[in-house]
Amino acid sequence: MKAKDPNYEKRIRDSFAKQQLMRTIGAEMTDVEPGVVSIRLPFRDDLGQQHGFLHAGAIAAVADSACGYAALSLMPAEAGVLSIEFKVNMLSPAKGDAIIARGTVIRAGRTIMVCRADVHAVTGSEQKLVAAMQGTIMVVEGRGLND
Amino acid sequence: MKAKDPNYEKRIRDSFAKQQLMRTIGAEMTDVEPGVVSIRLPFRDDLGQQHGFLHAGAIAAVADSACGYAALSLMPAEAGVLSIEFKVNMLSPAKGDAIIARGTVIRAGRTIMVCRADVHAVTGSEQKLVAAMQGTIMVVEGRGLND
Amino acid sequence: MKAKDPNYEKRIRDSFAKQQLMRTIGAEMTDVEPGVVSIRLPFRDDLGQQHGFLHAGAIAAVADSACGYAALSLMPAEAGVLSIEFKVNMLSPAKGDAIIARGTVIRAGRTIMVCRADVHAVTGSEQKLVAAMQGTIMVVEGRGLND
Amino acid sequence: MKAKDPNYEKRIRDSFAKQQLMRTIGAEMTDVEPGVVSIRLPFRDDLGQQHGFLHAGAIAAVADSACGYAALSLMPAEAGVLSIEFKVNMLSPAKGDAIIARGTVIRAGRTIMVCRADVHAVTGSEQKLVAAMQGTIMVVEGRGLND
Repeated sequence: MKAKDPNYEKRIRDSFAKQQLMRTIGAEMTDVEPGVVSIRLPFRDDLGQQHGFLHAGAIAAVADSACGYAALSLMPAEAGVLSIEFKVNMLSPAKGDAIIARGTVIRAGRTIMVCRADVHAVTGSEQKLVAAMQGTIMVVEGRGLND
Repeated sequence: MKAKDPNYEKRIRDSFAKQQLMRTIGAEMTDVEPGVVSIRLPFRDDLGQQHGFLHAGAIAAVADSACGYAALSLMPAEAGVLSIEFKVNMLSPAKGDAIIARGTVIRAGRTIMVCRADVHAVTGSEQKLVAAMQGTIMVVEGRGLND
Repeated sequence: MKAKDPNYEKRIRDSFAKQQLMRTIGAEMTDVEPGVVSIRLPFRDDLGQQHGFLHAGAIAAVADSACGYAALSLMPAEAGVLSIEFKVNMLSPAKGDAIIARGTVIRAGRTIMVCRADVHAVTGSEQKLVAAMQGTIMVVEGRGLND
Repeated sequence: MKAKDPNYEKRIRDSFAKQQLMRTIGAEMTDVEPGVVSIRLPFRDDLGQQHGFLHAGAIAAVADSACGYAALSLMPAEAGVLSIEFKVNMLSPAKGDAIIARGTVIRAGRTIMVCRADVHAVTGSEQKLVAAMQGTIMVVEGRGLND
Protein backbone atom coordinates (compact mmCIF):
# COMPACT_ATOMS: atom_id res chain seq x y z
CA MET A 1 0.00 0.00 0.00
CA LYS A 2 1.20 3.51 -0.81
CA ALA A 3 0.42 6.83 0.85
CA LYS A 4 -1.07 9.55 -1.36
CA ASP A 5 -0.09 12.30 1.08
CA PRO A 6 3.70 12.35 1.68
CA ASN A 7 3.01 14.14 4.97
CA TYR A 8 0.68 11.40 6.20
CA GLU A 9 2.61 10.45 9.33
CA LYS A 10 2.75 13.95 10.83
CA ARG A 11 -0.89 14.51 9.89
CA ILE A 12 -1.92 11.33 11.68
CA ARG A 13 0.15 11.93 14.79
CA ASP A 14 -1.15 15.50 15.04
CA SER A 15 -4.72 14.26 14.71
CA PHE A 16 -4.22 11.52 17.28
CA ALA A 17 -2.99 14.20 19.70
CA LYS A 18 -6.38 15.90 19.26
CA GLN A 19 -8.32 12.76 20.25
CA GLN A 20 -8.87 13.66 23.85
CA LEU A 21 -10.35 10.29 24.77
CA MET A 22 -7.03 8.68 23.85
CA ARG A 23 -5.24 11.02 26.27
CA THR A 24 -7.86 10.42 28.96
CA ILE A 25 -7.34 6.66 28.87
CA GLY A 26 -3.57 6.93 28.37
CA ALA A 27 -3.24 5.51 24.86
CA GLU A 28 -0.17 6.22 22.75
CA MET A 29 0.34 5.85 19.03
CA THR A 30 3.30 3.64 18.16
CA ASP A 31 3.73 2.58 14.51
CA VAL A 32 2.44 4.59 11.56
CA GLU A 33 2.97 3.13 8.11
CA PRO A 34 0.88 3.31 4.93
CA GLY A 35 -2.17 1.20 5.67
CA VAL A 36 -1.08 0.08 9.14
CA VAL A 37 -1.27 1.94 12.46
CA SER A 38 -0.68 0.63 15.98
CA ILE A 39 -1.88 2.08 19.27
CA ARG A 40 -0.71 0.94 22.71
CA LEU A 41 -2.84 1.19 25.82
CA PRO A 42 -1.15 0.42 29.16
CA PHE A 43 -3.45 -1.28 31.67
CA ARG A 44 -4.86 0.92 34.37
CA ASP A 45 -7.31 -0.07 37.08
CA ASP A 46 -9.57 2.82 36.17
CA LEU A 47 -10.28 1.31 32.74
CA GLY A 48 -11.65 -1.95 34.10
CA GLN A 49 -14.98 -3.74 33.97
CA GLN A 50 -16.60 -5.49 36.93
CA HIS A 51 -14.09 -8.39 37.04
CA GLY A 52 -11.03 -6.16 36.80
CA PHE A 53 -10.25 -6.89 33.15
CA LEU A 54 -10.00 -4.11 30.60
CA HIS A 55 -13.50 -2.95 29.61
CA ALA A 56 -14.52 -3.90 26.06
CA GLY A 57 -15.21 -0.22 25.41
CA ALA A 58 -11.57 0.66 26.02
CA ILE A 59 -10.49 -2.12 23.68
CA ALA A 60 -12.94 -0.92 21.04
CA ALA A 61 -11.77 2.67 21.43
CA VAL A 62 -8.12 1.98 20.61
CA ALA A 63 -8.96 -0.55 17.90
CA ASP A 64 -11.32 1.96 16.27
CA SER A 65 -8.67 4.70 16.35
CA ALA A 66 -6.07 2.30 14.94
CA CYS A 67 -8.44 1.39 12.08
CA GLY A 68 -9.39 5.00 11.39
CA TYR A 69 -5.81 6.19 11.20
CA ALA A 70 -4.73 3.20 9.13
CA ALA A 71 -7.40 4.31 6.66
CA LEU A 72 -6.36 7.97 6.88
CA SER A 73 -2.78 7.01 6.03
CA LEU A 74 -3.96 6.07 2.52
CA MET A 75 -6.19 9.09 1.90
CA PRO A 76 -5.35 12.30 0.02
CA ALA A 77 -4.24 15.31 2.07
CA GLU A 78 -7.65 17.00 1.94
CA ALA A 79 -9.70 14.07 3.19
CA GLY A 80 -11.10 13.33 6.62
CA VAL A 81 -12.07 10.06 8.17
CA LEU A 82 -15.43 8.93 9.55
CA SER A 83 -16.07 5.63 11.35
CA ILE A 84 -19.26 4.20 9.87
CA GLU A 85 -19.36 1.01 11.88
CA PHE A 86 -17.23 -1.65 13.49
CA LYS A 87 -17.64 -5.13 14.92
CA VAL A 88 -15.34 -6.50 17.58
CA ASN A 89 -14.98 -9.97 19.08
CA MET A 90 -13.54 -10.31 22.56
CA LEU A 91 -11.43 -13.48 22.41
CA SER A 92 -9.91 -13.68 25.89
CA PRO A 93 -9.96 -11.56 29.04
CA ALA A 94 -7.75 -8.51 28.42
CA LYS A 95 -5.12 -8.29 31.16
CA GLY A 96 -1.35 -7.89 31.41
CA ASP A 97 0.92 -4.86 31.00
CA ALA A 98 -0.77 -3.29 27.99
CA ILE A 99 -2.75 -3.99 24.87
CA ILE A 100 -1.58 -3.15 21.37
CA ALA A 101 -4.19 -2.62 18.66
CA ARG A 102 -2.85 -2.91 15.14
CA GLY A 103 -5.21 -1.63 12.44
CA THR A 104 -4.71 -2.72 8.83
CA VAL A 105 -6.54 -1.61 5.69
CA ILE A 106 -7.82 -4.61 3.74
CA ARG A 107 -9.66 -2.60 1.07
CA ALA A 108 -8.88 0.99 0.13
CA GLY A 109 -11.73 2.25 -2.02
CA ARG A 110 -12.27 5.81 -3.15
CA THR A 111 -15.20 6.37 -0.77
CA ILE A 112 -15.14 3.37 1.57
CA MET A 113 -12.22 1.71 3.30
CA VAL A 114 -12.43 -1.55 5.23
CA CYS A 115 -10.02 -2.36 8.04
CA ARG A 116 -9.24 -5.13 10.46
CA ALA A 117 -7.57 -4.69 13.81
CA ASP A 118 -5.88 -7.35 15.90
CA VAL A 119 -5.55 -6.53 19.57
CA HIS A 120 -2.86 -8.32 21.57
CA ALA A 121 -2.37 -8.24 25.31
CA VAL A 122 1.29 -7.90 26.22
CA THR A 123 2.68 -9.38 29.44
CA GLY A 124 6.45 -9.10 29.67
CA SER A 125 7.72 -10.60 26.42
CA GLU A 126 4.53 -12.55 25.73
CA GLN A 127 1.71 -11.52 23.43
CA LYS A 128 -1.78 -12.98 23.24
CA LEU A 129 -4.55 -12.14 20.78
CA VAL A 130 -7.44 -10.86 22.90
CA ALA A 131 -9.72 -9.06 20.43
CA ALA A 132 -10.39 -8.77 16.70
CA MET A 133 -12.18 -5.96 14.91
CA GLN A 134 -13.53 -5.50 11.40
CA GLY A 135 -14.83 -2.06 10.49
CA THR A 136 -15.84 0.35 7.77
CA ILE A 137 -14.44 3.86 7.34
CA MET A 138 -15.71 6.60 5.06
CA VAL A 139 -13.46 8.97 3.14
CA VAL A 140 -14.90 12.46 3.68
CA GLU A 141 -13.90 15.00 1.04
CA GLY A 142 -15.04 18.54 0.33
CA ARG A 143 -16.02 19.38 3.88
CA GLY A 144 -12.82 21.13 4.90
CA LEU A 145 -11.54 18.16 6.90
CA ASN A 146 -8.03 16.80 6.71
CA ASP A 147 -8.18 14.22 9.47
CA MET B 1 -39.55 -10.52 29.97
CA LYS B 2 -39.24 -11.69 33.55
CA ALA B 3 -36.31 -11.62 35.95
CA LYS B 4 -35.20 -14.96 37.45
CA ASP B 5 -33.35 -13.25 40.29
CA PRO B 6 -35.72 -11.07 42.38
CA ASN B 7 -32.65 -9.12 43.53
CA TYR B 8 -31.55 -8.33 39.97
CA GLU B 9 -31.67 -4.54 40.23
CA LYS B 10 -29.39 -4.25 43.25
CA ARG B 11 -27.04 -6.84 41.77
CA ILE B 12 -26.78 -4.86 38.53
CA ARG B 13 -26.31 -1.48 40.18
CA ASP B 14 -23.62 -2.90 42.48
CA SER B 15 -21.82 -4.42 39.54
CA PHE B 16 -22.04 -1.22 37.51
CA ALA B 17 -20.40 0.59 40.42
CA LYS B 18 -17.45 -1.81 40.03
CA GLN B 19 -16.96 -0.93 36.34
CA GLN B 20 -14.21 1.59 36.84
CA LEU B 21 -14.21 2.70 33.19
CA MET B 22 -17.79 3.90 33.62
CA ARG B 23 -16.70 6.04 36.56
CA THR B 24 -13.66 7.32 34.66
CA ILE B 25 -15.77 8.57 31.77
CA GLY B 26 -18.61 9.76 34.03
CA ALA B 27 -21.39 7.37 32.99
CA GLU B 28 -24.37 6.76 35.24
CA MET B 29 -26.90 3.97 35.19
CA THR B 30 -30.47 5.21 34.91
CA ASP B 31 -33.23 2.63 34.23
CA VAL B 32 -33.00 -1.02 35.21
CA GLU B 33 -35.89 -3.26 34.24
CA PRO B 34 -36.03 -6.93 33.25
CA GLY B 35 -34.39 -7.08 29.83
CA VAL B 36 -33.82 -3.33 29.50
CA VAL B 37 -31.06 -1.15 30.99
CA SER B 38 -30.18 2.47 30.22
CA ILE B 39 -26.90 4.29 30.82
CA ARG B 40 -26.40 8.03 30.49
CA LEU B 41 -23.09 9.64 29.59
CA PRO B 42 -22.84 13.45 29.86
CA PHE B 43 -20.63 15.02 27.20
CA ARG B 44 -17.17 16.00 28.29
CA ASP B 45 -14.42 17.49 26.16
CA ASP B 46 -11.98 14.87 27.37
CA LEU B 47 -14.01 12.08 25.71
CA GLY B 48 -13.77 13.57 22.22
CA GLN B 49 -12.28 12.47 18.93
CA GLN B 50 -10.33 14.75 16.60
CA HIS B 51 -13.35 16.84 15.51
CA GLY B 52 -14.66 17.36 19.03
CA PHE B 53 -17.51 14.85 18.82
CA LEU B 54 -17.82 12.00 21.28
CA HIS B 55 -15.34 9.24 20.36
CA ALA B 56 -16.95 6.07 18.99
CA GLY B 57 -15.15 4.14 21.72
CA ALA B 58 -17.02 6.02 24.43
CA ILE B 59 -20.30 5.34 22.65
CA ALA B 60 -19.42 1.66 22.33
CA ALA B 61 -18.43 1.47 26.00
CA VAL B 62 -21.77 2.64 27.37
CA ALA B 63 -23.78 0.70 24.77
CA ASP B 64 -21.84 -2.47 25.61
CA SER B 65 -22.45 -2.01 29.34
CA ALA B 66 -26.14 -1.33 28.70
CA CYS B 67 -26.41 -4.54 26.65
CA GLY B 68 -24.46 -6.60 29.18
CA TYR B 69 -26.59 -5.50 32.11
CA ALA B 70 -29.82 -5.89 30.15
CA ALA B 71 -28.73 -9.50 29.64
CA LEU B 72 -27.70 -9.91 33.28
CA SER B 73 -31.15 -8.75 34.40
CA LEU B 74 -32.62 -11.96 32.94
CA MET B 75 -30.01 -14.37 34.31
CA PRO B 76 -30.17 -16.52 37.44
CA ALA B 77 -28.50 -15.17 40.59
CA GLU B 78 -25.37 -17.31 40.19
CA ALA B 79 -24.58 -16.32 36.62
CA GLY B 80 -22.07 -13.84 35.26
CA VAL B 81 -22.01 -12.02 31.99
CA LEU B 82 -19.38 -12.02 29.23
CA SER B 83 -19.45 -9.83 26.11
CA ILE B 84 -18.62 -12.10 23.20
CA GLU B 85 -18.91 -9.50 20.47
CA PHE B 86 -20.77 -6.42 19.37
CA LYS B 87 -21.27 -4.38 16.24
CA VAL B 88 -22.11 -0.70 16.33
CA ASN B 89 -23.12 1.75 13.60
CA MET B 90 -22.42 5.43 14.11
CA LEU B 91 -25.43 7.18 12.57
CA SER B 92 -24.73 10.86 13.24
CA PRO B 93 -22.03 12.87 15.01
CA ALA B 94 -22.58 12.46 18.76
CA LYS B 95 -22.88 15.89 20.38
CA GLY B 96 -25.26 17.67 22.76
CA ASP B 97 -25.70 17.47 26.52
CA ALA B 98 -25.41 13.72 26.93
CA ILE B 99 -26.01 10.38 25.25
CA ILE B 100 -28.34 7.71 26.57
CA ALA B 101 -27.71 4.10 25.59
CA ARG B 102 -30.69 1.81 26.06
CA GLY B 103 -29.88 -1.90 25.84
CA THR B 104 -32.66 -4.40 25.18
CA VAL B 105 -32.56 -8.19 25.11
CA ILE B 106 -34.04 -9.55 21.88
CA ARG B 107 -33.26 -13.21 22.58
CA ALA B 108 -32.69 -14.69 26.02
CA GLY B 109 -31.25 -18.16 25.54
CA ARG B 110 -29.88 -20.38 28.24
CA THR B 111 -26.26 -19.88 27.16
CA ILE B 112 -26.39 -17.00 24.67
CA MET B 113 -28.29 -13.73 24.84
CA VAL B 114 -28.58 -11.25 22.00
CA CYS B 115 -29.15 -7.56 22.63
CA ARG B 116 -29.66 -4.36 20.73
CA ALA B 117 -28.84 -0.91 22.01
CA ASP B 118 -30.14 2.39 20.69
CA VAL B 119 -28.02 5.41 21.58
CA HIS B 120 -29.66 8.83 21.53
CA ALA B 121 -27.96 12.18 21.88
CA VAL B 122 -29.92 14.52 24.14
CA THR B 123 -29.85 18.28 23.67
CA GLY B 124 -32.29 20.08 25.92
CA SER B 125 -35.61 18.35 25.33
CA GLU B 126 -34.60 16.90 21.96
CA GLN B 127 -33.37 13.39 21.28
CA LYS B 128 -31.64 12.08 18.19
CA LEU B 129 -30.61 8.51 17.40
CA VAL B 130 -26.82 8.62 16.93
CA ALA B 131 -25.72 4.99 17.19
CA ALA B 132 -27.12 1.45 17.05
CA MET B 133 -25.54 -1.70 18.47
CA GLN B 134 -26.26 -5.39 18.11
CA GLY B 135 -24.26 -7.75 20.30
CA THR B 136 -23.92 -11.20 21.78
CA ILE B 137 -23.56 -11.96 25.49
CA MET B 138 -22.65 -15.25 27.10
CA VAL B 139 -24.22 -16.57 30.30
CA VAL B 140 -21.33 -17.78 32.47
CA GLU B 141 -22.32 -20.30 35.14
CA GLY B 142 -20.28 -22.46 37.50
CA ARG B 143 -17.29 -20.15 37.72
CA GLY B 144 -18.25 -18.36 40.90
CA LEU B 145 -19.41 -15.23 39.10
CA ASN B 146 -22.64 -13.41 39.82
CA ASP B 147 -22.19 -10.39 37.56
CA MET C 1 -40.40 8.18 6.49
CA LYS C 2 -41.26 9.52 3.06
CA ALA C 3 -40.36 8.28 -0.41
CA LYS C 4 -38.55 10.72 -2.72
CA ASP C 5 -39.49 8.74 -5.81
CA PRO C 6 -43.30 8.43 -6.19
CA ASN C 7 -42.69 5.36 -8.35
CA TYR C 8 -40.63 3.60 -5.68
CA GLU C 9 -42.82 0.53 -5.31
CA LYS C 10 -42.80 -0.48 -8.97
CA ARG C 11 -39.07 0.26 -9.17
CA ILE C 12 -38.38 -2.01 -6.20
CA ARG C 13 -40.61 -4.86 -7.37
CA ASP C 14 -39.06 -4.72 -10.84
CA SER C 15 -35.58 -4.80 -9.36
CA PHE C 16 -36.43 -7.68 -7.03
CA ALA C 17 -37.60 -9.63 -10.08
CA LYS C 18 -34.08 -9.20 -11.50
CA GLN C 19 -32.43 -10.74 -8.41
CA GLN C 20 -32.04 -14.22 -9.77
CA LEU C 21 -30.88 -15.68 -6.46
CA MET C 22 -34.24 -14.76 -4.95
CA ARG C 23 -36.02 -16.71 -7.70
CA THR C 24 -33.61 -19.64 -7.32
CA ILE C 25 -34.38 -20.01 -3.63
CA GLY C 26 -38.09 -19.22 -4.07
CA ALA C 27 -38.30 -15.91 -2.18
CA GLU C 28 -41.17 -13.52 -2.80
CA MET C 29 -41.48 -9.85 -1.94
CA THR C 30 -44.51 -9.07 0.17
CA ASP C 31 -44.81 -5.57 1.70
CA VAL C 32 -43.19 -2.46 0.21
CA GLU C 33 -43.62 0.78 2.10
CA PRO C 34 -41.32 3.79 2.48
CA GLY C 35 -38.48 2.57 4.64
CA VAL C 36 -39.86 -0.93 5.20
CA VAL C 37 -39.74 -3.98 2.93
CA SER C 38 -40.64 -7.59 3.70
CA ILE C 39 -39.56 -10.75 1.89
CA ARG C 40 -41.00 -14.20 2.47
CA LEU C 41 -39.06 -17.42 1.92
CA PRO C 42 -41.00 -20.70 2.12
CA PHE C 43 -38.99 -23.57 3.60
CA ARG C 44 -37.57 -26.03 1.13
CA ASP C 45 -35.39 -29.03 1.90
CA ASP C 46 -32.87 -27.90 -0.70
CA LEU C 47 -32.07 -24.75 1.30
CA GLY C 48 -31.03 -26.63 4.44
CA GLN C 49 -27.83 -26.98 6.42
CA GLN C 50 -26.52 -30.23 7.85
CA HIS C 51 -29.22 -30.58 10.53
CA GLY C 52 -32.10 -29.81 8.18
CA PHE C 53 -32.71 -26.25 9.36
CA LEU C 54 -32.61 -23.33 6.95
CA HIS C 55 -28.97 -22.45 6.15
CA ALA C 56 -27.82 -19.14 7.64
CA GLY C 57 -26.82 -18.06 4.13
CA ALA C 58 -30.42 -18.28 2.95
CA ILE C 59 -31.55 -16.27 5.96
CA ALA C 60 -28.86 -13.67 5.28
CA ALA C 61 -29.79 -13.50 1.60
CA VAL C 62 -33.42 -12.54 2.18
CA ALA C 63 -32.61 -10.24 5.11
CA ASP C 64 -29.98 -8.45 3.00
CA SER C 65 -32.42 -7.99 0.12
CA ALA C 66 -35.09 -6.72 2.53
CA CYS C 67 -32.63 -4.19 3.96
CA GLY C 68 -31.37 -3.09 0.56
CA TYR C 69 -34.85 -2.50 -0.82
CA ALA C 70 -36.01 -0.76 2.35
CA ALA C 71 -33.10 1.64 1.76
CA LEU C 72 -33.90 1.98 -1.95
CA SER C 73 -37.48 2.94 -1.10
CA LEU C 74 -36.15 6.20 0.38
CA MET C 75 -33.69 7.06 -2.38
CA PRO C 76 -34.16 9.41 -5.34
CA ALA C 77 -35.19 7.86 -8.67
CA GLU C 78 -31.67 7.98 -10.12
CA ALA C 79 -29.91 6.21 -7.26
CA GLY C 80 -28.79 2.63 -6.92
CA VAL C 81 -28.14 0.57 -3.83
CA LEU C 82 -24.96 -1.18 -2.70
CA SER C 83 -24.69 -3.44 0.35
CA ILE C 84 -21.52 -2.38 2.16
CA GLU C 85 -21.78 -4.81 5.04
CA PHE C 86 -24.19 -6.60 7.33
CA LYS C 87 -24.10 -8.52 10.58
CA VAL C 88 -26.66 -11.16 11.43
CA ASN C 89 -27.35 -13.08 14.63
CA MET C 90 -29.03 -16.46 14.39
CA LEU C 91 -31.34 -16.59 17.42
CA SER C 92 -33.08 -19.95 17.05
CA PRO C 93 -33.07 -22.79 14.52
CA ALA C 94 -35.02 -21.61 11.47
CA LYS C 95 -37.79 -24.10 10.71
CA GLY C 96 -41.53 -24.03 10.03
CA ASP C 97 -43.54 -23.09 6.95
CA ALA C 98 -41.56 -20.01 5.92
CA ILE C 99 -39.46 -17.15 7.16
CA ILE C 100 -40.34 -13.50 6.74
CA ALA C 101 -37.55 -10.91 6.77
CA ARG C 102 -38.68 -7.39 7.45
CA GLY C 103 -36.07 -4.72 6.71
CA THR C 104 -36.43 -1.26 8.23
CA VAL C 105 -34.34 1.86 7.70
CA ILE C 106 -33.15 3.32 11.00
CA ARG C 107 -31.01 6.10 9.49
CA ALA C 108 -31.47 7.54 6.02
CA GLY C 109 -28.41 9.63 5.25
CA ARG C 110 -27.57 11.19 1.94
CA THR C 111 -24.76 8.70 1.23
CA ILE C 112 -25.16 6.00 3.86
CA MET C 113 -28.30 4.27 5.10
CA VAL C 114 -28.45 1.92 8.05
CA CYS C 115 -31.08 -0.79 8.33
CA ARG C 116 -32.20 -3.50 10.67
CA ALA C 117 -34.03 -6.65 9.68
CA ASP C 118 -36.04 -8.94 11.92
CA VAL C 119 -36.53 -12.44 10.58
CA HIS C 120 -39.46 -14.47 11.91
CA ALA C 121 -40.18 -18.13 11.28
CA VAL C 122 -43.84 -18.73 10.59
CA THR C 123 -45.53 -22.00 11.52
CA GLY C 124 -49.27 -21.92 10.99
CA SER C 125 -50.45 -18.83 12.82
CA GLU C 126 -47.37 -18.62 15.07
CA GLN C 127 -44.35 -16.40 14.53
CA LYS C 128 -40.97 -16.66 16.23
CA LEU C 129 -38.00 -14.32 15.89
CA VAL C 130 -35.15 -16.44 14.51
CA ALA C 131 -32.60 -13.92 13.22
CA ALA C 132 -31.69 -10.24 13.50
CA MET C 133 -29.60 -8.22 11.06
CA GLN C 134 -28.01 -4.78 11.18
CA GLY C 135 -26.42 -3.52 7.99
CA THR C 136 -25.07 -0.59 6.04
CA ILE C 137 -26.19 0.40 2.54
CA MET C 138 -24.58 2.94 0.23
CA VAL C 139 -26.54 5.32 -1.99
CA VAL C 140 -24.89 5.15 -5.42
CA GLU C 141 -25.53 8.17 -7.64
CA GLY C 142 -24.09 9.26 -10.97
CA ARG C 143 -23.28 5.79 -12.23
CA GLY C 144 -26.41 5.24 -14.28
CA LEU C 145 -28.00 2.95 -11.71
CA ASN C 146 -31.59 3.20 -10.55
CA ASP C 147 -31.79 0.11 -8.35
CA MET D 1 -3.60 -25.62 15.19
CA LYS D 2 -4.22 -29.29 15.86
CA ALA D 3 -7.29 -31.46 15.26
CA LYS D 4 -8.72 -33.30 18.29
CA ASP D 5 -10.60 -35.77 16.10
CA PRO D 6 -8.23 -37.71 13.80
CA ASN D 7 -11.21 -38.38 11.54
CA TYR D 8 -12.02 -34.66 11.17
CA GLU D 9 -11.65 -34.43 7.40
CA LYS D 10 -14.08 -37.23 6.55
CA ARG D 11 -16.53 -35.93 9.16
CA ILE D 12 -16.43 -32.45 7.63
CA ARG D 13 -16.76 -33.60 4.03
CA ASP D 14 -19.68 -35.89 4.95
CA SER D 15 -21.39 -33.03 6.76
CA PHE D 16 -20.83 -30.61 3.89
CA ALA D 17 -22.51 -33.13 1.59
CA LYS D 18 -25.59 -32.87 3.84
CA GLN D 19 -25.80 -29.07 3.45
CA GLN D 20 -28.39 -29.03 0.72
CA LEU D 21 -28.09 -25.29 0.13
CA MET D 22 -24.47 -25.81 -0.90
CA ARG D 23 -25.56 -28.36 -3.50
CA THR D 24 -28.39 -26.10 -4.69
CA ILE D 25 -26.02 -23.22 -5.40
CA GLY D 26 -23.24 -25.49 -6.72
CA ALA D 27 -20.59 -24.98 -4.04
CA GLU D 28 -17.80 -27.49 -3.55
CA MET D 29 -15.47 -27.98 -0.62
CA THR D 30 -11.81 -27.79 -1.59
CA ASP D 31 -9.21 -27.64 1.22
CA VAL D 32 -9.77 -29.09 4.68
CA GLU D 33 -6.99 -28.63 7.22
CA PRO D 34 -7.06 -28.16 10.99
CA GLY D 35 -8.48 -24.68 11.49
CA VAL D 36 -8.77 -23.82 7.79
CA VAL D 37 -11.44 -24.79 5.28
CA SER D 38 -12.02 -23.49 1.75
CA ILE D 39 -15.19 -23.61 -0.33
CA ARG D 40 -15.40 -22.75 -4.02
CA LEU D 41 -18.52 -21.42 -5.70
CA PRO D 42 -18.51 -21.16 -9.51
CA PHE D 43 -20.46 -18.17 -10.83
CA ARG D 44 -23.89 -18.89 -12.17
CA ASP D 45 -26.39 -16.39 -13.52
CA ASP D 46 -29.08 -17.77 -11.23
CA LEU D 47 -27.15 -16.63 -8.14
CA GLY D 48 -27.07 -12.97 -9.14
CA GLN D 49 -28.43 -9.77 -7.69
CA GLN D 50 -30.07 -7.01 -9.74
CA HIS D 51 -26.85 -5.86 -11.48
CA GLY D 52 -25.72 -9.37 -12.40
CA PHE D 53 -23.05 -9.70 -9.71
CA LEU D 54 -23.10 -12.53 -7.21
CA HIS D 55 -25.72 -11.82 -4.51
CA ALA D 56 -24.25 -11.01 -1.10
CA GLY D 57 -26.35 -13.82 0.35
CA ALA D 58 -24.53 -16.39 -1.79
CA ILE D 59 -21.20 -14.95 -0.67
CA ALA D 60 -22.30 -15.06 2.95
CA ALA D 61 -23.54 -18.64 2.58
CA VAL D 62 -20.21 -20.07 1.44
CA ALA D 63 -18.18 -17.90 3.84
CA ASP D 64 -20.39 -19.02 6.75
CA SER D 65 -20.00 -22.68 5.81
CA ALA D 66 -16.22 -22.21 5.46
CA CYS D 67 -16.06 -20.64 8.93
CA GLY D 68 -18.30 -23.26 10.50
CA TYR D 69 -16.29 -26.18 9.14
CA ALA D 70 -12.97 -24.53 9.99
CA ALA D 71 -14.28 -24.42 13.56
CA LEU D 72 -15.56 -28.01 13.41
CA SER D 73 -12.10 -29.19 12.31
CA LEU D 74 -10.79 -28.30 15.78
CA MET D 75 -13.64 -29.77 17.82
CA PRO D 76 -13.83 -33.16 19.51
CA ALA D 77 -15.59 -35.98 17.64
CA GLU D 78 -18.82 -35.66 19.63
CA ALA D 79 -19.34 -31.93 19.09
CA GLY D 80 -21.58 -30.07 16.67
CA VAL D 81 -21.30 -26.60 15.30
CA LEU D 82 -23.75 -23.69 15.53
CA SER D 83 -23.33 -20.32 13.79
CA ILE D 84 -24.13 -17.69 16.39
CA GLU D 85 -23.49 -14.67 14.22
CA PHE D 86 -21.35 -13.30 11.43
CA LYS D 87 -20.52 -9.97 9.89
CA VAL D 88 -19.44 -9.62 6.28
CA ASN D 89 -18.09 -6.67 4.30
CA MET D 90 -18.55 -6.64 0.55
CA LEU D 91 -15.32 -5.09 -0.79
CA SER D 92 -15.81 -5.21 -4.56
CA PRO D 93 -18.45 -6.53 -6.95
CA ALA D 94 -18.17 -10.31 -7.02
CA LYS D 95 -17.73 -11.47 -10.60
CA GLY D 96 -15.38 -13.75 -12.57
CA ASP D 97 -15.17 -17.53 -12.85
CA ALA D 98 -15.75 -18.41 -9.21
CA ILE D 99 -15.30 -17.25 -5.66
CA ILE D 100 -13.25 -19.07 -3.05
CA ALA D 101 -14.08 -18.54 0.62
CA ARG D 102 -11.31 -19.51 3.00
CA GLY D 103 -12.37 -19.72 6.64
CA THR D 104 -9.73 -19.61 9.38
CA VAL D 105 -10.11 -20.03 13.13
CA ILE D 106 -8.53 -17.14 15.01
CA ARG D 107 -9.61 -18.26 18.48
CA ALA D 108 -10.49 -21.82 19.44
CA GLY D 109 -12.14 -21.70 22.84
CA ARG D 110 -13.82 -24.58 24.60
CA THR D 111 -17.33 -23.18 24.00
CA ILE D 112 -16.85 -20.35 21.52
CA MET D 113 -14.73 -20.22 18.38
CA VAL D 114 -14.09 -17.10 16.34
CA CYS D 115 -13.30 -17.26 12.64
CA ARG D 116 -12.45 -14.99 9.77
CA ALA D 117 -13.09 -15.74 6.12
CA ASP D 118 -11.49 -14.08 3.12
CA VAL D 119 -13.44 -14.41 -0.10
CA HIS D 120 -11.56 -14.02 -3.38
CA ALA D 121 -13.02 -13.80 -6.85
CA VAL D 122 -11.05 -15.86 -9.33
CA THR D 123 -10.82 -14.88 -13.00
CA GLY D 124 -8.40 -17.05 -14.94
CA SER D 125 -5.18 -16.91 -12.94
CA GLU D 126 -6.08 -13.70 -11.10
CA GLN D 127 -7.51 -13.44 -7.62
CA LYS D 128 -9.15 -10.42 -6.02
CA LEU D 129 -10.37 -10.06 -2.44
CA VAL D 130 -14.11 -9.31 -2.71
CA ALA D 131 -15.48 -9.98 0.77
CA ALA D 132 -14.33 -10.41 4.36
CA MET D 133 -16.22 -12.12 7.19
CA GLN D 134 -15.74 -12.31 10.94
CA GLY D 135 -18.03 -14.63 12.85
CA THR D 136 -18.71 -16.55 16.02
CA ILE D 137 -19.35 -20.28 16.24
CA MET D 138 -20.58 -22.24 19.23
CA VAL D 139 -19.32 -25.70 20.17
CA VAL D 140 -22.41 -27.80 20.90
CA GLU D 141 -21.77 -30.83 23.09
CA GLY D 142 -24.09 -33.32 24.77
CA ARG D 143 -26.92 -33.00 22.28
CA GLY D 144 -26.06 -35.99 20.13
CA LEU D 145 -24.55 -33.87 17.35
CA ASN D 146 -21.26 -34.57 15.64
CA ASP D 147 -21.34 -31.93 12.93
